[in-house]
Amino acid sequence: MTTIEIPADSPFGTDNLPYGVFSPAGGAPRVGVRVGDSVLDLARALGDDVFAAPTLNPFMAQGYDRWVAVRSQLTSLVTGEVPDDAVHALADVTLHLPIEVADYVDFYASEHHASNVGRLFRPDAEPLLPNWKHLPVGYHGRSGTVLVSGTDIVRPSGQRKADPAPVFGPSTRLDIEAELGFVVGTGTPLNTPIPPDDFARHVFGAVLLNDWSARDIQAWEYVPLGPNLGKSFATSISAWVVPLLALEAARVPLPGQAPEPLPYLRESQPWGLDVELVVEWNGEEVSRPPYREMYWSPAQMLAHLTVNGASARTGDLYGSGTISGPEKHQRGAFLELSWGGAEPLTVKGEQRSFLLDGDEVVITATAPGASGGRIAFGEVRGRILPAGLS
Amino acid sequence: MTTIEIPADSPFGTDNLPYGVFSPAGGAPRVGVRVGDSVLDLARALGDDVFAAPTLNPFMAQGYDRWVAVRSQLTSLVTGEVPDDAVHALADVTLHLPIEVADYVDFYASEHHASNVGRLFRPDAEPLLPNWKHLPVGYHGRSGTVLVSGTDIVRPSGQRKADPAPVFGPSTRLDIEAELGFVVGTGTPLNTPIPPDDFARHVFGAVLLNDWSARDIQAWEYVPLGPNLGKSFATSISAWVVPLLALEAARVPLPGQAPEPLPYLRESQPWGLDVELVVEWNGEEVSRPPYREMYWSPAQMLAHLTVNGASARTGDLYGSGTISGPEKHQRGAFLELSWGGAEPLTVKGEQRSFLLDGDEVVITATAPGASGGRIAFGEVRGRILPAGLS
Repeated sequence: MTTIEIPADSPFGTDNLPYGVFSPAGGAPRVGVRVGDSVLDLARALGDDVFAAPTLNPFMAQGYDRWVAVRSQLTSLVTGEVPDDAVHALADVTLHLPIEVADYVDFYASEHHASNVGRLFRPDAEPLLPNWKHLPVGYHGRSGTVLVSGTDIVRPSGQRKADPAPVFGPSTRLDIEAELGFVVGTGTPLNTPIPPDDFARHVFGAVLLNDWSARDIQAWEYVPLGPNLGKSFATSISAWVVPLLALEAARVPLPGQAPEPLPYLRESQPWGLDVELVVEWNGEEVSRPPYREMYWSPAQMLAHLTVNGASARTGDLYGSGTISGPEKHQRGAFLELSWGGAEPLTVKGEQRSFLLDGDEVVITATAPGASGGRIAFGEVRGRILPAGLS
Repeated sequence: MTTIEIPADSPFGTDNLPYGVFSPAGGAPRVGVRVGDSVLDLARALGDDVFAAPTLNPFMAQGYDRWVAVRSQLTSLVTGEVPDDAVHALADVTLHLPIEVADYVDFYASEHHASNVGRLFRPDAEPLLPNWKHLPVGYHGRSGTVLVSGTDIVRPSGQRKADPAPVFGPSTRLDIEAELGFVVGTGTPLNTPIPPDDFARHVFGAVLLNDWSARDIQAWEYVPLGPNLGKSFATSISAWVVPLLALEAARVPLPGQAPEPLPYLRESQPWGLDVELVVEWNGEEVSRPPYREMYWSPAQMLAHLTVNGASARTGDLYGSGTISGPEKHQRGAFLELSWGGAEPLTVKGEQRSFLLDGDEVVITATAPGASGGRIAFGEVRGRILPAGLS
């Protein structure tokens, strides 16, 4: 037996305990929990084969009461003795996509982001469209291209507008969107909407999400049916899923909704979240998007997704949309930070608006933990490879 | 041993041999082939457990050469003797969703449909948007709500525009879209586009598809990110997947593309398909949408979907978009047939524009077969139940 070292100031202490899927050298993928800079093998530590699976889905499907019980068990387990062969140094393991993604939906829930994009894409019109304050606008994305943090991103090629005819080639306006993603643990059958107050019984946890976006492809294709190839080449998520149970101390009221939403979108306890993101471009901090500024809550998003009778499934993933605050340094996309390229940033001494080959983006985040310190999300990291190479 | 009766004029003869998933009374779901009015149990007939699965996915994943080999084997098998316990009367079995849907994408490939919808939704603008003739416009839909033919459709509720504020309630403009759906049998990894001429090596077969659409919900929500809840409550497909190998005799040139598409969308052998659909509303024929009129081919759709580096997976499903021809009686949606409600149809003596509770829609289709007769798609059928009931 052995004990797990947890540095006193670790944001991966017992207030956090995020779940992921890892493989030790030569071993098969299995479920682990991050504790300090170690990974605890749950199948070995708890003797339960639901954790010997290559995704979190079988465990998530066991439901809310089981999530509570395992978290409670782990909280004492990780501060006591565990079997030697159940503990690995984080540096010695490979991390995998933690969930099998069922449907992937991306929302658009930041008023600051939606207003900025409206001004940039539709300069002659009201920045917010008439529906925006009545419903959380969102669309389905490609679940097959959700990738784990660390996966290189090949620059996508596609059509972009040109005169007199569109041209095909590598995107010249490759961008990021810094978001949170929410993972459905237990769904509902058809015709069983999930009211906002049932959110925590259905959503297992949250990840950091980078919705890579080719703005030139997107701008040409997106009318009238929405984004498609400008987004579908890659969406990166963090390897660690922070349990919603670890985010209780991060709950805050929403900034305020006017007009009052329709009854099916009203929540009696607010699900605003005080999560602070940091976006680094080639190692330089370029933004600190504040999740607490989001207009729509993740509980309202799930209520909206299911109110028409659509079922939800274990492994459904939905993104918040780009997180942008009111200040320039709080914008979660380079499109907004560089104002469409008109106001380039200085990154490591160079003037930059969009991503160049070889660039790397790392998004991290922290939130208040239950014991007064801060807990961290796992990073979501990606490096750009030239078009046509993989 | 026994023989299977195949009526001489059956559209489910040896030129067709569509695959599906069925369960005999008290038995588990498994793969079958429809022959006349019988279902042949492939695991029993061929002694291969890949067909004992509850979806076609494991068989489809074996790839093109295997599809060709099994079809060849079946062609002789069904006209000879087969084990008694391998044959069921169609009327005695339950049919299931034939595939596990990975990603679902819906296109918008009929010029007549896109022009009609443009005139109805944007009466003051050009009916076709500037991108439409340069790329097959499409968007991702909800794969978790793809349902097998025969599943009742509960009328969805949602927001619709009203003055001074939107209201919530059951959709009052519930519609259909008559489409073909294409099923990916073997995909490709990231950054491996599928050129149009590789279409037949990747697409296993085709289904009939009804993209149920709540027009009032859709019209309010769809800017700027496209349709979401107006579509995500249900998409029905036929229980039988017609192999692409059975559609060789149905291949026809496209009606003509001008301007010439960009090189990645050019096909050297055309994949237009002479499939004739019939839409029945409460038993009365209201439309005969001709697939041969579609502007973009399904090979071009798949090439477009993957050209940005997006991977494709076994079980990916993509719809053609509503099939509408140039004549009024060839329109594949009630929105177009009733011109937005302004010109109601007479259905069984009643004036009708959109679906009422209790209505039933059945879509069928036929195509030329290899031996000179016609082959049939399995029907896609759905009945409307009142909102809030299931």
